[in-house]
This record gives sequence, structure tokens and C-alpha cells, in this order.
Amino acid sequence: MEIGFIGLGIMGRPMALNLRKAGHSLFVPERASLDAECRAAFTVVPDARAVARSGEVIILMVPDTPDVEAVLFGPSGVAEGLSPGKLVIDMSSISPTATKEFAAKVNALGCDYLDAPVSGGEVGAKNAALTIMVGGPQKAFDRARPLFEAMGRNITLVGEQNGAGQTCKVANQIIVALTIEAVAEALVFAAKAGADPAKVRQALMGGFASSRILEVHGERMITRGFAPGFRIALHQKDLNLALQAARELGVALPSTALAQQLFSACVAAGGGGLGPFRDGAGAGGDGGAEGGARTWGLTRVVPPRDAPLKL
Amino acid sequence: MEIGFIGLGIMGRPMALNLRKAGHSLFVPERASLDAECRAAFTVVPDARAVARSGEVIILMVPDTPDVEAVLFGPSGVAEGLSPGKLVIDMSSISPTATKEFAAKVNALGCDYLDAPVSGGEVGAKNAALTIMVGGPQKAFDRARPLFEAMGRNITLVGEQNGAGQTCKVANQIIVALTIEAVAEALVFAAKAGADPAKVRQALMGGFASSRILEVHGERMITRGFAPGFRIALHQKDLNLALQAARELGVALPSTALAQQLFSACVAAGGGGLGPFRDGAGAGGDGGAEGGARTWGLTRVVPPRDAPLKL
Amino acid sequence: MEIGFIGLGIMGRPMALNLRKAGHSLFVPERASLDAECRAAFTVVPDARAVARSGEVIILMVPDTPDVEAVLFGPSGVAEGLSPGKLVIDMSSISPTATKEFAAKVNALGCDYLDAPVSGGEVGAKNAALTIMVGGPQKAFDRARPLFEAMGRNITLVGEQNGAGQTCKVANQIIVALTIEAVAEALVFAAKAGADPAKVRQALMGGFASSRILEVHGERMITRGFAPGFRIALHQKDLNLALQAARELGVALPSTALAQQLFSACVAAGGGGLGPFRDGAGAGGDGGAEGGARTWGLTRVVPPRDAPLKL
Amino acid sequence: MEIGFIGLGIMGRPMALNLRKAGHSLFVPERASLDAECRAAFTVVPDARAVARSGEVIILMVPDTPDVEAVLFGPSGVAEGLSPGKLVIDMSSISPTATKEFAAKVNALGCDYLDAPVSGGEVGAKNAALTIMVGGPQKAFDRARPLFEAMGRNITLVGEQNGAGQTCKVANQIIVALTIEAVAEALVFAAKAGADPAKVRQALMGGFASSRILEVHGERMITRGFAPGFRIALHQKDLNLALQAARELGVALPSTALAQQLFSACVAAGGGGLGPFRDGAGAGGDGGAEGGARTWGLTRVVPPRDAPLKL
Repeated sequence: MEIGFIGLGIMGRPMALNLRKAGHSLFVPERASLDAECRAAFTVVPDARAVARSGEVIILMVPDTPDVEAVLFGPSGVAEGLSPGKLVIDMSSISPTATKEFAAKVNALGCDYLDAPVSGGEVGAKNAALTIMVGGPQKAFDRARPLFEAMGRNITLVGEQNGAGQTCKVANQIIVALTIEAVAEALVFAAKAGADPAKVRQALMGGFASSRILEVHGERMITRGFAPGFRIALHQKDLNLALQAARELGVALPSTALAQQLFSACVAAGGGGLGPFRDGAGAGGDGGAEGGARTWGLTRVVPPRDAPLKL
Repeated sequence: MEIGFIGLGIMGRPMALNLRKAGHSLFVPERASLDAECRAAFTVVPDARAVARSGEVIILMVPDTPDVEAVLFGPSGVAEGLSPGKLVIDMSSISPTATKEFAAKVNALGCDYLDAPVSGGEVGAKNAALTIMVGGPQKAFDRARPLFEAMGRNITLVGEQNGAGQTCKVANQIIVALTIEAVAEALVFAAKAGADPAKVRQALMGGFASSRILEVHGERMITRGFAPGFRIALHQKDLNLALQAARELGVALPSTALAQQLFSACVAAGGGGLGPFRDGAGAGGDGGAEGGARTWGLTRVVPPRDAPLKL
Repeated sequence: MEIGFIGLGIMGRPMALNLRKAGHSLFVPERASLDAECRAAFTVVPDARAVARSGEVIILMVPDTPDVEAVLFGPSGVAEGLSPGKLVIDMSSISPTATKEFAAKVNALGCDYLDAPVSGGEVGAKNAALTIMVGGPQKAFDRARPLFEAMGRNITLVGEQNGAGQTCKVANQIIVALTIEAVAEALVFAAKAGADPAKVRQALMGGFASSRILEVHGERMITRGFAPGFRIALHQKDLNLALQAARELGVALPSTALAQQLFSACVAAGGGGLGPFRDGAGAGGDGGAEGGARTWGLTRVVPPRDAPLKL
Repeated sequence: MEIGFIGLGIMGRPMALNLRKAGHSLFVPERASLDAECRAAFTVVPDARAVARSGEVIILMVPDTPDVEAVLFGPSGVAEGLSPGKLVIDMSSISPTATKEFAAKVNALGCDYLDAPVSGGEVGAKNAALTIMVGGPQKAFDRARPLFEAMGRNITLVGEQNGAGQTCKVANQIIVALTIEAVAEALVFAAKAGADPAKVRQALMGGFASSRILEVHGERMITRGFAPGFRIALHQKDLNLALQAARELGVALPSTALAQQLFSACVAAGGGGLGPFRDGAGAGGDGGAEGGARTWGLTRVVPPRDAPLKL
């Protein structure tokens, strides 16, 4: 299939390469930063408008709502290159509300629209193992399915209304943030109470407390593996989407709101731009006396400087 | 083995029967409420002192810290019947701090002590599938292991200090409460935003948001299966243990504290004595207009009476 | 002085009338909704551009950030009518960040800018008793002072940088919201514990717990005087300004975030569009059994239906 | 009047001296720590039993619930020295629930009981300016009034049931804690947003945000006057009374619970044993780069080390 692809970042690049590997032809916009591998694999065209003209399906993978808006409707943007019958798939994680507006505008040009945000991180993107949450018409979903299958594994049409995919992604981010906080509070508590957090984690896996987060992030908390896997700033952006939408909907999300503030505390304490946990500046040097709990996920409102965790 | 067993409640009864099934002899204190099956299976003796005299190992499974204290050190209690070399195993879920005191007193009588709280609920107790979290000396643990294996599956010596098992159980309860809240906030958000929570749950299983709670309790939230599985009052007791210990230790557990208050809101709204979710008075009649979100786990601070969830 | 005034709402109308009473000439844009008193008191001109041409000082009093932006920089807006030497005063409560941008644009046209939000409500506006919090150059503040004195009493130049007034207003709204919550939790607690909340309030006035909120809102909570004084939706908007700015600044405001969610819970329970406390649909009819606590300010996450407050 | 007085601590000592100054005779139990001024002013008797025998009214001012219990009902305690017609006044701040039990036991001996906790701190105690919140029979209150008037100013019979005074004190502590947090979040926000917190405080005094806490503690936050006025550990004890009682009553106090955790965070960060704000070890040395926000009241979950507050 002829595919336009916009957004060759940490996630987008391996996703596009996986589509190429599956035999599709990809068109991407010119960027000074395009590396040799990309220039060899994809056809480079001048701008987003040209991408939209070249592809039957146009896929977006950019950071935030304003980026999607600019790429779609800005000057020399996708909208200028669309013609009836094309399909736009936004795989970025953005506002469910704005998604409905963007879809309506694209539909008015005679094209279909799918919102299809992903989870699974860079590793999932590279291994074509992403979870893909889709909102939009069944027909468009069926048309896109082979593409999704080249990039991910757990693919769900959450609803036939645009925005359903983004809503699902927001729900995902709520659960992930709150579960990280849950595991962090539990392990910090256990460590401070004198138990070995590694033994505690092991005892809890398999019971009602078990989760992917306890498995993966719990392990990292214990081994102090604070190498960045995802930027806090992006997770904050996602929780912000949740809280803004909740305010509009009149839903109270007390724990989500608290987690957002704990993120801010973490950022303020110096863990902002990096991993889900901490600065990590100097992978091993995670910080003398106070390095302990502060670096554990969201929770760390308590820099236990005098009584570092026994790990 | 000759075993004294005190506490034949919802959990204790099937645990004791499983020990019997494994070939052990059990001694239990006289109670008017003892049913025919128990009278047939166990040897009934007058009181806790007699139980302690009869058994080589004495197992407790009672509701709360004061109950353990009364059974152990009250008049005609276990302590009066102990002699050097016996082993006391407290499988109740109680205070880690009090556990250390109880253990010290029992040790002073020349006996070993294990704290070995469980998780897994009534179903786990019946199926001999409990998770057992143990604190105490390795030697005592080895001696008790065959008994634990008759009652559970996932058996961990969390630490050789008494209290480590109880600390682990508290960590378990923190994670379970906060994950229920996480799933509830996410699914309420998704439903209010117009998505189908069942589809959302399905899309999230398998990704980073996946957990035993999303699987089991998420399902119940969606199908409105609010039949009680565990009493909120007991979960509140456990979170209270966490918060009291945290205060003594100088640890901040902000999300745990918030979850405790959301439990209280749930209790106040009429869901107190029953399931993890709701009143359930009249299984099907989960209450028209306002039945929606209030009944979902801890979260339900928002009785959305005018805008019931689309489920 | 020749003054342009835009925004004759609940607050703006009495403010403009007070300026007229002090002897100034006011120019206002044509609106179908202008009543006879306003038409008599003010000179009506076609639009915001004409207002800016007519006045030496142009005052804005509109609901939200986008409204200020539209009035200033939209088609036929204030910016089109400005000429060097004029002074723009925005008395709306809006984003501190956006304020800096608006000020820079107005400065580029050779004009001064003051942000001067108020507190004190409709009563304060009518009695020329508003608290006015100003950000901007000392010279512009001195020029505007006679106008401020015609509208308010407690007038402070918070800082010479634009945005300082708006920042101060946000701080005001944080304190007001959290103090309402403080008083509500304390009085609900006291009432549920069997004490008379009126006696409790009386005992606390004069001590360290005393505040304007305990005096005014505490009284209303006790007498159930839930007639609307301010719209929750506007207070939510203000807290949202706080939380958005805090996120940008990397400041954690945990209690503010929680209060915002309790507002949402209150809105969801049916108290949205009205008073600081509740729906009040039917002033006296504050709702049988559950009318008690739910209607008390932010707090009411607990509709104590079975045990109504003893008031 | 002949008065027994037990508890000559930071608060009790000046209170007792004020009673002496008003012409009453005081009997106190022997303590090695009694200083010359106390030995000169009061009659020293062997123990609490002797105190109860000597006084017509017996006043207690001790730290916590177990202390009151020990003094009243322990060996050689007050109860052993009581005879019908005497009046016991507990001015400590303790559990409302336990108070009811203690009162019932004292009543059974033919004596009246008043719970009469105070607020106002050491300064209020010295200046006979305490706020006194009383629970108990009107007749007993009338009898005690002259004593209260020798120690305080704002004296209220909150209810004729014992415990009402303690409940009121708990309400007081809820409001004080949450208002400190409110002021701290607002001033930290303002400072981080670039405004001068002193100007902000000044602008807010007199409006709806005004409170005794903004006046007194707001001033201290700005001048960094972190000399201890009250021990965090005692305020934590009081909030714990609130949260325990709330749990029993089924009331949700979400902001109080959060404040308690922020206290813990403050304690963990090294501000535990001292003032309402911070360690203060070295009055002026409030701690380099990070001294800023962390030391501000409860809030300080954000040690803004890289961007210290502009004060």
C-alpha cells in the first residue's frame, strides 16, 4: 500500500520501518534530521501536503494536540493534499475532544479518520508489539488492520466514534500512573518497615496485587534501574488530558489529580525530563543519602535523607 | 502433626479442614457455634490454653490485633498452655508493630513465632491456593512449611524478623486498594467520555495497564457484579494499619490516605458492610439513576444521578 | 477622564456605574442587552475598536482568557483602535501567562497595560469595596489609581511585572477554596460527632482557626443559606488556572488539586451552576435526608443519607 | 478555691501560675523536675491520689489519651483520691471517644467531669488568653467558669455532653492544619510565578482569603521565622484523632487525610520534632538552596532546589 507517514521520532521511526518491512511504500516529508536508513527506506517528498497527495493512507505520530493540528491543517499541511477516499490515521496520543473536531474536518473532505494511539513504548514499537486502541468506523478499521498488524499485536476497535481510541489511551495512562504510585507506596512502606522489598515483590506476584507494573517497574524500583523509558513530561501531558476532559465531563478523579501533583513534585525535585522515575544523571550514582525513596516513581514526597531505604 | 487451631471463621474453617485433609490432628476450642462437620473433624477442647497444651504447633486466624492479643495473653489464653519448643503461627492480618511484641513474649516462653498472613479470600482458602507471607526464623519456617503447603501455594519467607509477613500483607492491601481505585477512575472516565468500558478493559488487558484487579474487579465493575467478596470494613482496617505504621515510621503515603477516605465515602453512601464495591441490597437492584458510578470501587465520590453511566 | 469599558456583566455593570458616579465619561460597545440605565449613563459606540478610539483608558471585565483575547485582538477589537499613550486595564480573572503575552502585544503598540483582577463579589462591586490586585508599571498604576479608588478599597500594586495581579488573584482563589474545604470538613466532622456546629463555629471564631470564610461561609453552612453567591464553574476555572500554571512552573499543589476534584464531585452531584455550595433549586428545598453534608461546600463526598447531620 | 493540678509542662505551668495569681491554692504531685518557682507557688503532695484528695477541683494538662488514662485510673491515680462532689477538668487534647469513657467512670464515683481543651499556644497560656472549648454539664461549667476566666478569654460551652469540647478542639486543629496548607500552597505558587509573596499576603488580608493563619503564619513563611511554636508531632496526633474518629463515624475527610501525609513528608524531610514549619536547627540557618519551600508548612512536597523561592 502507498502510505504517507509523518513523525519519525523515537516511536514513529521503528513503526514506519516495520511498515516498510511488511512491504508497503512510505512517503515522508523532508527533514534535515532524516538519517541514511530512513532516506534509503522511504520516499522523501517536500512537505505534509505532498505526503497526503502521495499516500492512500496517511499516518501521523507526533507529540501533542497542537502538533497534530499543525500537521493536518497548517500551511502546506495534510488537508491541502487530501482527496476523497483517503484515510487519515492519527497514532499520536492527544485530546479526545480535539480528535472529534479534527475527524469532522477530515470527513468533510470526503476522507475517513481513525484515532489509533498506542502503548508499549520504544521496545514495543521496535518489536511490532504495540497495543493499539482505535476509534472510528468499522470499515476504516478493517482497511487499516493490515497496517496495524505490521506494527502491533493487541489491536482493538474500542468504538466506532472518533475519540474512543484516545479515550482508551487516557484510561490506560490513568491506570499506569496510579499503579506505579500503588507499587511505589507499598514498596517504600515495606522497605521503611524493615522488610526486603525484593522479597515483598516476589511474595505479591501471583496474588491479587500482581500487575505488569509490579513486575516491570517494581523490579526497576528495587534494582534502581532508573534509565529513562518514557518522559515524565509526556505522562503529565496525558494525565492533563484526563483531568481537563474530566472537568468538562463533571467527573471527579481524585487519585489521578493527586498523582499529577506527585509527578510535579518529582519534576521539581529534579526528575523532570527523564525516566518514569528519576533523573538518573549518572546511572549508578543515584544519589547518596536521599537517593532512596525520592527516586521511586511518583510517590516520592518523602526524601528520607536520614533513614535511606534498606534495599 | 498435632495442631492447635483457633479461629474457625470464613477463612479459618476451610484452612483447618485442609490441614485435616492433609492428615494432621487438630484441636480447637469449644464454641457453641461449632457445626457438625467441625465437631467430626477436630478434637474439641475447653479453651485456648487447652489448645496450646494439645498442639505442637498453634495456629491463629482471628479478625484483628486485639483478638490476637486476647487469644494469646488473655485469661485461659494460649500463653498459659505453652511449653518450650512449641511454635505459634499467627495467620491473622494484624499490626506489624504489635506482632513484634507478641513474638517477643512468646519467644520468652521458649517458643518460636511466625507471622503468616494470607491473601486470596474465601475461594483461595477453600482451594488451598492462598498466598502466604511469612515473617520469622528460617528454622521455624521450615518446620511449618508442610502445613503452609496444605493451605496455600505461593509461600514466601519475606524476612527472618517477625513482622515481615504482616508488613508484606499491608503492602499487598495498599496495592490492591490503589489498583481498584486506578481501574475504577479509568473505567468511570472512559464510560463518561462515551466509550464502552468493556471494550476499554479488553484493549488494556495485555498492556502495561494489565493487572489481576483489572481482570477480576474490572470485570465486576462492568457487569455490575457487586456481590460481596470481602468486607470494606476489613480493608479499611488494613489500610489503617498501613497509615498508623507509616505515621510511626515517618513515611508519607498520600494515595493510600486518599483511598482510605474514599472507602469512608463509600461506607457513608451505604456500601459499608459488604463487597469491595457496594451495598448490593437486592443483587439486581443496584439502583437506577445513581447506581452507576457510586458503586464502582472506592472512587465513587460522584453519584452521577443525572447522567448515569452508559454501560 | 474618558474611559472605554467592555464587559457590563454582574460585576462589570456596577463597577462602570461607580466610575460614572465618580464623574468619568464612559464609552461602551453596542449590545442588544444594554438596559436603559446603562444607555443613559454611558456613550454607546459600535464596537471594541471604537471604544478604544474613544477612551484614554480602556477597561475590560469579561469572563475568561479567550474572551480577553477576542476583545483585544479579534476583528474590530481594541488593538485596532489603540494609539500610543493609551492604557489598557484588564480587570477580568484570567491566565497569568496569557496576560504577559497580551501585555507585550499592547506595549508594542506604544500603550501601557495593567492586569487588575478583583475579589469581593457582586456586593463588593456595588459598594465600591472591591479588593484590587494589580500587576504592571508603577507609573501606569499611579495613573489608574483614581479609577481603582472609585471601584474598590483594598488596592495593591503586587508587582511591576504584568501578570503579578493575576497571580495574586489565583493565590486568593486557592486560599478561598481550601479554607471553605477546611471549614466544611471541620463542621461536618463536629456535627457527625454529635456537637452543635453553630457552637463550634462560635468557639473557634477569635482563635487561630478564625477566618473570613469561617465567619461568612461557616454561617451559611450552618443556616443552610445556599443561595448562590458565586458560580462553582468560575471557581473551577480559577483553580484550573492555578493548576495549569503550577504544572508549567513545576510546583506541586496537592490540596488545590484535591479541592478541584471535590468541586467536580459537587458539580456532578447536581450543584454545578450555582452557589458556592449547592443547587438550591428551590431556595428552601435543600433536599431532605441527604441535603445535609453533600451541600456543604467542596467537601461533600459523603452524602450521609442514613445519618443526616444534626443541625 | 483548693485546686489539684497535674501536668506542669510548657502549657500547664503558666496556666497553673495564672490560677495561683488569681488567688487559688494549688496542689501538685512531686516531681524531680519541679523548679523553685513552682515549689514556692504550689503545695507539693506525693502523687495524683493525694492531689485528688487535696483539691475540690482537679485539673489535668497532659500530652495524650494514654497519659490522661494513667493519671486518672492508674495506681495511686486521681480516681483513688476522689470523693463525691469533686470536679475533674481535663484540659489536655485527647480522644473524644475516650473522653466519654473517662467521664462515665468519674461520674460513677459521684463526681462531675468537664473536657476543656484549649488553643492559643504557649503565648496564650502565659497571657491568660487561651481559647477554651468545654464539654459537660452546664452546672459544672458554671462552677468552673472562674477558673477558666483566670486562664483564658474565649470560653465556650460547646455542648452538655462530655466529649463536645474535645470534638471542637479536633475541628479547630482540622481548620488550622488545612488553612496553613492553603496559605502555603498559595504563597509558594505566587513566589514561583514570580510575584512577591509579601505583597500578595498584604493584598489578600482584608478580603475573603483573610484569616488568622494568613496573618500570623503567612508572615512567618515570608520572613522565614521558623522558630518552633508548636510541635508537628502533636499536630499530627490531633489530626490522627480526627481521622480515627472519622473512620468510626463513617465521615470522609479527604483534605485532612492529605494534610496528615504532608505532615509526614515534612517530618521525614527533617522537620519533625519542631515548629509548625521546619527544623530550624540554627534559627537563621534555614538551609541553603532547598531551604525555601520545603520549610513552608505542610505543603512542602517540592524541595525546589534548583529554583529557590524568590522571597
